[in-house]
Amino acid sequence: MLMRNLTMMTDLYQLTMMNGYFRYGKRDQVSVFDMFFRGHALQEYAVMAGLEQVIEYIQNLHFNREDIEYLRSLNIFDEDFLEYLRTFRFNGEIYAMPEGSIVFPQEPLVRVKAKIMEAQFIETALLNIINHQTLIATKARRVVQAAKGGSVLEFGLRRAQGPDAGILGARAAVIGGCDATSNVMTGQMFDIPVKGTHAHSWVMSFPDELSAFRAYADVFPDGCMLLVDTYDTLKSGVPNAITCFKELRAKGYEPVGIRLDSGDLAYLSKKARQMLDAAGFPNAKIFASGDLDEDLIWDLNAQGACIDVWGVGTKLITSDGFTALGGVYKLSCEDENGTMVPKIKVSENPVKITNPGYKKVMRIYDNATNKAIADLIMLEEESVDESKPLTLFHPVDTWKKMTVTDFHTKELLQPIFVDGKLVYQQPKLQQICAFAREEMESFWEEYRRLRNPHVYKVDLSQKLYDLKQELLKKARNGKA
Amino acid sequence: MLMRNLTMMTDLYQLTMMNGYFRYGKRDQVSVFDMFFRGHALQEYAVMAGLEQVIEYIQNLHFNREDIEYLRSLNIFDEDFLEYLRTFRFNGEIYAMPEGSIVFPQEPLVRVKAKIMEAQFIETALLNIINHQTLIATKARRVVQAAKGGSVLEFGLRRAQGPDAGILGARAAVIGGCDATSNVMTGQMFDIPVKGTHAHSWVMSFPDELSAFRAYADVFPDGCMLLVDTYDTLKSGVPNAITCFKELRAKGYEPVGIRLDSGDLAYLSKKARQMLDAAGFPNAKIFASGDLDEDLIWDLNAQGACIDVWGVGTKLITSDGFTALGGVYKLSCEDENGTMVPKIKVSENPVKITNPGYKKVMRIYDNATNKAIADLIMLEEESVDESKPLTLFHPVDTWKKMTVTDFHTKELLQPIFVDGKLVYQQPKLQQICAFAREEMESFWEEYRRLRNPHVYKVDLSQKLYDLKQELLKKARNGKA
Repeated sequence: MLMRNLTMMTDLYQLTMMNGYFRYGKRDQVSVFDMFFRGHALQEYAVMAGLEQVIEYIQNLHFNREDIEYLRSLNIFDEDFLEYLRTFRFNGEIYAMPEGSIVFPQEPLVRVKAKIMEAQFIETALLNIINHQTLIATKARRVVQAAKGGSVLEFGLRRAQGPDAGILGARAAVIGGCDATSNVMTGQMFDIPVKGTHAHSWVMSFPDELSAFRAYADVFPDGCMLLVDTYDTLKSGVPNAITCFKELRAKGYEPVGIRLDSGDLAYLSKKARQMLDAAGFPNAKIFASGDLDEDLIWDLNAQGACIDVWGVGTKLITSDGFTALGGVYKLSCEDENGTMVPKIKVSENPVKITNPGYKKVMRIYDNATNKAIADLIMLEEESVDESKPLTLFHPVDTWKKMTVTDFHTKELLQPIFVDGKLVYQQPKLQQICAFAREEMESFWEEYRRLRNPHVYKVDLSQKLYDLKQELLKKARNGKA
Repeated sequence: MLMRNLTMMTDLYQLTMMNGYFRYGKRDQVSVFDMFFRGHALQEYAVMAGLEQVIEYIQNLHFNREDIEYLRSLNIFDEDFLEYLRTFRFNGEIYAMPEGSIVFPQEPLVRVKAKIMEAQFIETALLNIINHQTLIATKARRVVQAAKGGSVLEFGLRRAQGPDAGILGARAAVIGGCDATSNVMTGQMFDIPVKGTHAHSWVMSFPDELSAFRAYADVFPDGCMLLVDTYDTLKSGVPNAITCFKELRAKGYEPVGIRLDSGDLAYLSKKARQMLDAAGFPNAKIFASGDLDEDLIWDLNAQGACIDVWGVGTKLITSDGFTALGGVYKLSCEDENGTMVPKIKVSENPVKITNPGYKKVMRIYDNATNKAIADLIMLEEESVDESKPLTLFHPVDTWKKMTVTDFHTKELLQPIFVDGKLVYQQPKLQQICAFAREEMESFWEEYRRLRNPHVYKVDLSQKLYDLKQELLKKARNGKA
């Protein structure tokens, strides 16, 4: 559906480096890159999202004639390199964690193995797409948790950072647990529910509030949700809504409810609930909106606010307070004369030191509870013997150890592209959402809570740990 | 270039309200809406951006067969309304402030006069586009100010909130004063400079740093900018860069400079400057990047950091710390039996009370300095006599008054669409940037400073003020 050609959506330096690799005879050199994030302020986990758009991007990857002309006009590229770009496609391998997966810092969410020019080129778009949707899915998950079973609707389109941020952000929000979006295009593209009623301008365009309500109820008797705060919520809005609801019921329809969009939502929702109940509408829902986020929803619930449905806009769709996941894409392995050689990026900051090698990620589940215990990053060639006790250790404070028995494992990275061919059956969005809910269920609540969650273990295998130490030592001696 | 059909990118309630207006015989009723923002945390002013994409949106506005089919499948719309949507176009009037304009809270940035169904429908996309680009242009302007004449490059694509946030965000950043972007697609679409060199992975893919630098210099002898922090900035990176630069000079090329991407940028830049100067490269530029924003740049400059070019990514392209402009779109006027009747939206919160009526915005300039003194929102039918003293008063604290003489005025809202026809000659991006610089020059520095700027006056004409008071009184008596 969104088959825009995003090939040119890249950082210029990807192309200058490619020209360099081309000139330096590295055209056929195979490299491995990992995409991961380093930890973020929101909490420990993130909800993986965006893979479907990465797949579309890869499938659609090609430079057209105008693109090549434009690049030539920059006067920095070799002519034979520009000629090479004409037939440039992605012919490599991509493994990734499925959308909806619960993922943690440092572990590869996407692993790319390809000729270095192909692997390098796709970095920018891959990061842009996964960083964005994973960020919004994670934020949405937090909002949904705060709502404690109340329904959450996404309607931030008008405040999103551009069209895609609204369209794909709404998709990610639904993966994160929102029940619906106001965004009609997202509904159409991904077959998810769309919701909406009316604005203050509807009320203002009628001579008075009751006329506006009656007109709306007349047009949508089946889905009558009335916005009650245009003039005065408790003195005018709710009483007029009740009048309208009684008339509707007399015609054989049950109203959906009312929407509060301003004022003290705790107080107003309790009063409105009493008024609706007293008038014989205990099933009329109270919908609240207005600059909500997970903290405010949590607080309103703690105050006993009578809110059934939360409409969350700006702060969800922009991930207010934490505006970028900060995922990175780092070289981990490189072919040198036919042998794959692990690579490390050192840094004064230990969290920025990369994990070398061609790796996989195993999630370890307790057999008794089916809950996740830890993730283990290991080399691709390694395996875990589920019949024997497994000792895990902290990747920095190595004296912190834990031995697990009676467990099973799951390999998290799934094959998406092999030899440039799509081998992955992209699930429908509703399937992704179902998987995302299962994923949440597989973690103890302590890992999921909004504030100070328990730190989930992401450890390295002994072999990977030793390799990392060895490469670190070499790098400190000037031979990385 | 970006001719995606964004017609379906709307909130569902726009369509439900339209169906309501359609059913209620309001098809031909003309309404006026204002788009404005209410003030924001960043500072007083904003830099208007996004109009070009709004124009494309309006020109491309139409529902295709699949769209209608999808809407029908929702089972909430009247069949004759769906039939009407088949030929739906925007046939109204749009006035707007040109891109690059310095704009202030409460004043209409866009004014739409159209049949209510058309005016209502375009709200969501218009807000999405203007909110986003104006936000990023404003953030960029702050970063550019902090750089105090140093060049600022935008390269946040990989951390932007989706493709459009990267592509159009880079466009907005250039309107805000950035000199170039790393984003090749933005460069191609809008004919603006693109910049970039190489990444750590380039260095890591060679046996050692010096080989990597030599290879890069060989491929790009004319634009040699080397990233020096892969292993150790001062012990390895800068000395290797100097070796490479000397070889380059021997071949007749002058290097561009070095890039620092981590560590203490104040300390490292001063040391690197000394080393480059001592080696005979006083013109080699120092480029700095790494989680920069306007505060950090301001502080680094205050510490005497020797940085010539600032590469700003995540925090600019996401407007970190202030993630949404919060622009709104409010009904201000409505046709009632042939007469345009001003409308007001009341609120317990005075800043949320709208300004009624069909309005324009005049900017008042001092003749002696050509600097802006104040903006005056007034009714369209009013005019200002430049030959007479003009008394302005604060729109809330009305006792605050100022009389200006020897001034001239400029009308800020320009005709964009009239009777659905585009009447505006869209400037090229470079022209918009030139206009944006002129706009900044027309304001005293005190209004533009990063912290605690002087509050610029946005006042109401006496006639508009009186109208607002009258409508407020009526509304409080229940007759809005």
